[in-house]
Amino acid sequence: MDRRIGFIGLGIMGRPMARNLVTAGSDLIVHSRSPGPVDDVVAAGARRAGSPEEVAASSDVVILMLPDTPDVEAVLFGPSGVVTGIAEGRLVIDMSSIEPLAARRFAERIGDVGAEMLDAPVSGGEKGAIDGTLSIMIGGSAAAVELAMPIFEILGGNIVHVGPSGAGQICKACNQLVVGATIEAVAEALALAERCGVDPVMVRQALLGGFASSRVLEVHGQRMLDRDFEPGFRARLHLKDAGIVIETGSEVGQPLPSFAPVAEQFRRLVGGGGGDLDHSALFTLIAGRDAEGVSPPVAPGASPP
Amino acid sequence: MDRRIGFIGLGIMGRPMARNLVTAGSDLIVHSRSPGPVDDVVAAGARRAGSPEEVAASSDVVILMLPDTPDVEAVLFGPSGVVTGIAEGRLVIDMSSIEPLAARRFAERIGDVGAEMLDAPVSGGEKGAIDGTLSIMIGGSAAAVELAMPIFEILGGNIVHVGPSGAGQICKACNQLVVGATIEAVAEALALAERCGVDPVMVRQALLGGFASSRVLEVHGQRMLDRDFEPGFRARLHLKDAGIVIETGSEVGQPLPSFAPVAEQFRRLVGGGGGDLDHSALFTLIAGRDAEGVSPPVAPGASPP
Repeated sequence: MDRRIGFIGLGIMGRPMARNLVTAGSDLIVHSRSPGPVDDVVAAGARRAGSPEEVAASSDVVILMLPDTPDVEAVLFGPSGVVTGIAEGRLVIDMSSIEPLAARRFAERIGDVGAEMLDAPVSGGEKGAIDGTLSIMIGGSAAAVELAMPIFEILGGNIVHVGPSGAGQICKACNQLVVGATIEAVAEALALAERCGVDPVMVRQALLGGFASSRVLEVHGQRMLDRDFEPGFRARLHLKDAGIVIETGSEVGQPLPSFAPVAEQFRRLVGGGGGDLDHSALFTLIAGRDAEGVSPPVAPGASPP
Repeated sequence: MDRRIGFIGLGIMGRPMARNLVTAGSDLIVHSRSPGPVDDVVAAGARRAGSPEEVAASSDVVILMLPDTPDVEAVLFGPSGVVTGIAEGRLVIDMSSIEPLAARRFAERIGDVGAEMLDAPVSGGEKGAIDGTLSIMIGGSAAAVELAMPIFEILGGNIVHVGPSGAGQICKACNQLVVGATIEAVAEALALAERCGVDPVMVRQALLGGFASSRVLEVHGQRMLDRDFEPGFRARLHLKDAGIVIETGSEVGQPLPSFAPVAEQFRRLVGGGGGDLDHSALFTLIAGRDAEGVSPPVAPGASPP
């Protein structure tokens, strides 16, 4: 790739993504708050920049991978931000998961200085970032998507141009809605089985053969059975995304009767100190005491209390 | 198969299942309320019986495939019921979806007359019944399951002995919980996308590539996009199953924070006259007016009301 690529935000996701770009032979300049990940990617062959402004000044394409909406706003428009360094005709690709309406607003402001911006949030977690198999959901102009495609093809597998600016973030919100609700549904089903004295291992196996089958039942269902809540994807990040879903729904008047209580469960989990557990730890909020080995399962046919 | 098999209940599911048994060379005797399906299966090679009692008197194994708990109770224990005709050592396989506690109670009463009963509800719908690829979730003794296995292998694909009596029905309740909740989640996601002005076709495609992927997103998601709510599986049957989930949960004290509103949505759908639509018609309760082509989608970035 002959274009100079800037990368800002070398967290759990950004660091392996940046490394994959370097490995693919990209001319990469990076910036991040923590020096450790920068040293790591620089050792792999990238150059170091002192600020987002400096990244933007020396790149044809600037990629952002940041935790939340305010982080993206600060990096783009804050002191020594991207917008101060960027030249006309350049491209910004924001791969963070942020509020769809903010994404659209940011794209307009980037457009005002003659550059262009894509929203391109991802799904697939750290493993997808490391393996270069992320799902990428893109909002923006077809011309910009075409320009960015060689980069997306290094980072991801399932690459979908969803629609105009903001559409990528809306798609990501839909993704997090479905993933969160499915985790809660699987948790409720396995907890119900267990509380009825039925082996949830067998239930998961039976359900995988029919319409109840899902990636969540496969992966997160197994984590629930193992009581293994090492992230994976942290509950506090899913809480942030659940907030985006609820807010977007309320902005357009979309009823979300089953997701609203799921968002509430994420709030309970994070509020109770489980923010750094995997999102499948929703299970712990509703599983019986036997889930911690305290009491034996209730036999099927037990009398109502 | 050299055993004489009785089959009671030749509805949408029972009729193709009985036909598959005949085709596999079983010696089959059938009974059903409607004469049409009986004629059909008799024409295929089965014998006809005048009552459940008569079926039981001339069979080694009696299979039931009936709509609901009271139907099973009437056929087993009502006038000219199975229990009047059955001999010691015989086997009853109830493949209907009924209340788990009732299944256990019925099995005990069948045990009292020296026979044995399995609960073996299925998933996979009419198509699975026709193709002989049903998922079968079995509760009962290992010996009885072994005895019934050649029959199950004609009718189904994914055959799981979940646990003791009642465990099959509990597993089926868990299945219907997950399927119902996933349908509602997919409906909320596609409706949200559409109301934000984003093409739900692209959203479904993007979501199929990651953790949001499920059989429901694939099959029922497509039905929502097509506004094609021909059943499939009727909403009123899913409402019945949702009632079983809620009741079982309340009997064992299982919180179901996200399934409770899903059950309520099924009640709304059926109460509004949608009982004979496919269960994916939950989508119609929350999709915007544009879903019926009345108004254009709301553009992304539309102001909050």
